[in-house]
Amino acid sequence: MAHLILLIVIFHLVNYLKNNRYFYFKYTIKNLYNFLFNYLSVIMSQEFHEKALNYHRGARPGKIYISSHKNIDTHQGLSLAYTPGVAAPVREILKNPNTVNEYTIKGNLVAVITDGSAVLGLGNAGPLAAKPVMEGKAVLFKRFADIDVFDIELDTQDVDEIVQTIKNIAPTFGGINLEDISAPRCFEIEQRLIDELDIPVFHDDQHGTAIIVAAGLLNAMEIQGKTAEKVKVVCAGGGSAGIATLNLIAELGVKRENILLVDRNGVVSKDKKQKVNKYKAAFAVDTKKETLSDAMNGADVFIGVARGDLVTQEMVKSMSEKPIIFALSNPDPEISPVDAFSCRNDLLMATGRSDYPNQVNNVLGFPYIFRGALDSHSKEINTEMKIAAVHALKDLAKLPVPNSVLQAYQIDSLSYGRDYIIPKPFDPRLIDIVPKAIYEAAISSGVSCLT
Amino acid sequence: MAHLILLIVIFHLVNYLKNNRYFYFKYTIKNLYNFLFNYLSVIMSQEFHEKALNYHRGARPGKIYISSHKNIDTHQGLSLAYTPGVAAPVREILKNPNTVNEYTIKGNLVAVITDGSAVLGLGNAGPLAAKPVMEGKAVLFKRFADIDVFDIELDTQDVDEIVQTIKNIAPTFGGINLEDISAPRCFEIEQRLIDELDIPVFHDDQHGTAIIVAAGLLNAMEIQGKTAEKVKVVCAGGGSAGIATLNLIAELGVKRENILLVDRNGVVSKDKKQKVNKYKAAFAVDTKKETLSDAMNGADVFIGVARGDLVTQEMVKSMSEKPIIFALSNPDPEISPVDAFSCRNDLLMATGRSDYPNQVNNVLGFPYIFRGALDSHSKEINTEMKIAAVHALKDLAKLPVPNSVLQAYQIDSLSYGRDYIIPKPFDPRLIDIVPKAIYEAAISSGVSCLT
Repeated sequence: MAHLILLIVIFHLVNYLKNNRYFYFKYTIKNLYNFLFNYLSVIMSQEFHEKALNYHRGARPGKIYISSHKNIDTHQGLSLAYTPGVAAPVREILKNPNTVNEYTIKGNLVAVITDGSAVLGLGNAGPLAAKPVMEGKAVLFKRFADIDVFDIELDTQDVDEIVQTIKNIAPTFGGINLEDISAPRCFEIEQRLIDELDIPVFHDDQHGTAIIVAAGLLNAMEIQGKTAEKVKVVCAGGGSAGIATLNLIAELGVKRENILLVDRNGVVSKDKKQKVNKYKAAFAVDTKKETLSDAMNGADVFIGVARGDLVTQEMVKSMSEKPIIFALSNPDPEISPVDAFSCRNDLLMATGRSDYPNQVNNVLGFPYIFRGALDSHSKEINTEMKIAAVHALKDLAKLPVPNSVLQAYQIDSLSYGRDYIIPKPFDPRLIDIVPKAIYEAAISSGVSCLT
Repeated sequence: MAHLILLIVIFHLVNYLKNNRYFYFKYTIKNLYNFLFNYLSVIMSQEFHEKALNYHRGARPGKIYISSHKNIDTHQGLSLAYTPGVAAPVREILKNPNTVNEYTIKGNLVAVITDGSAVLGLGNAGPLAAKPVMEGKAVLFKRFADIDVFDIELDTQDVDEIVQTIKNIAPTFGGINLEDISAPRCFEIEQRLIDELDIPVFHDDQHGTAIIVAAGLLNAMEIQGKTAEKVKVVCAGGGSAGIATLNLIAELGVKRENILLVDRNGVVSKDKKQKVNKYKAAFAVDTKKETLSDAMNGADVFIGVARGDLVTQEMVKSMSEKPIIFALSNPDPEISPVDAFSCRNDLLMATGRSDYPNQVNNVLGFPYIFRGALDSHSKEINTEMKIAAVHALKDLAKLPVPNSVLQAYQIDSLSYGRDYIIPKPFDPRLIDIVPKAIYEAAISSGVSCLT
């Protein structure tokens, strides 16, 4: 507590000095402030680390469990659940395989599958270390859309084997959510599974992120007075989220010639097309720009899905009037809102963090997207469905915010504008609005198996 | 109800006539009785079929669901369950992979895996039709041993692909229960997985059945005054249950030269050794006996794991003094207890059915065996552990039966003897006794990973 008070005092002192432009003092005291902030962060993060470990241990290790919603406590109940009663649904499914959704949980069961090759920001952590994340995903599916999830961690990172293994276990499930699989492998794995399976396959790190970004971006453009047809976009990061986001915003009207993709080797220009994978090469444009700085100069929109502290204040200053910055790396954004706003006021900004306004959070998407896909018995989650989700989320942010949301976030008011372009995760209207939009798009685009 | 009263009247009439040896009337009326019994069975089974279908439909299709035992209702809870909190266990598991059991459900999670090649008595029903059975198995694991189960139905029946697929998904689980995989493929699949994985792999149709049969058989032999060393055994059926049972009772002292294995082509003699798979060939003996009738003549023990109505009354009559019959095919035993007891009284009989005494029910085994194996962090379920389970079950049947068991089965009394050689599934002492025996055997045989 004493630390915190000291920190606040120094923070205000720094701001005071800053505004009074006592440069020398400012420099000295800002260093002291940074030291104390880092010291405090370490203590707080150790405390949080321990708290998170205790949460995962608890009275029972892990975060999920299996139970039954049928009577299994009596001899009679079990004679229906297992032999001899279970022979009845077996016979019905033999007669008509579609009835499997009537007698088992297949129709409400999603596999969250990873090979552990790109776990959080921790890279190739492998299947065991990925398990808490996948169980976490299961928890979110359950909490927000009442979808049952089996998390599956794979002991192979070979593309062919991953595809074959998932195909082999697919009869178990009503849908497949791929998770934390590194790019560019993830693109081939997903596409092959989409082609070969008759249930929805969805790589959330790609499309989940893309959908939320696109919804936020449409609102951000409206607020900043920009249009998809004219907007100039810079995307830092050509991994799963970057490529999927660019593909989706191109579907939504952003011109491919107005998009600059920047990877760790700089702008992906026509000259460099041969040096990058085909997914990045699809965004190679004819430009002399080479660096991220070059790209940012005059850009309307920056989308960062690369790494923390990549963008400088100078880059932000060089953007067009009323720029839009989505700095989505977690926990450290490409540029912090504090640094970005300190160099210009006409900015609209979103991050991946819950402690700033406009959090791009995948939980706004995947539970509801799968809910709609499962309910409509869809064979896939196609572009029409993804775009339906974008519009549903975009439109929801414009509606008046109910009290329950304000209470959940302990805030007094919230309304559509620069600090609220994306719905909040605990918004109870999401489950009503997004799955319905997905469902209708599945029907109208002809991928639903409902007659 | 009227049907039932009529049936009872006719049943008693038949028995009356039988005992009075009015052969002509007996023949006529028995036919009438059979007709009515079959008619009633059809009506009752249709009713039961519908009841079972409604049970599986219910308010929510299927029998299992996923939930969380951690706080996932608040923003704070979710920040521990998923990002940023989930990074804490991920980092710990990266440092020490063994902690995965501390932070996830892996240590309590069993995969029930089938390829649908031998579902119940229905044969190769495929993965979808197998799903209700596997969910039923999940329910039993949960109900009796609080073990979480993901049921996995495979879309391949190729041995290599099954093995590779299961190896690839194995990091997810603390144990693998193979289920309803046809013989002889099941033997190779199980053995390869045991050799290649460091978690227990157990084909329940083999060893689960073998363990319960062996426990019952040891008690049956004691009651009938026979010893393992001298007993002559006939086993009809060389599938998964038959082979595993013979292997296990051989471990328990039954001499291989006293075992006759009979498959659909008759007695597996040395002459026929070349014509059968290697698992059956291991039980080929030097004998002139060719048919099941030949084999039964003078046998002490019959174990039927083949098909209904295979054994005639003449065969039963030809067995030794005080014979033991385990007629385990379901729903129709190799010979019904009514038919068997009507030709001799010195018989001890067990079936797979819950409506006769001495039910051989796998649920007495697998939940507790896996409980003990998971709790002892065993790398496998070895012979020592299987034998420990046999003795634990055998000994439990000799203890006084608690009131809760009598109440569950609505009976007045039950005590060790010809009608009670195997514990009842709802015996609450099973969870205390069997896992402990398995645990201790795992430790003493050196397959536990506990230090």
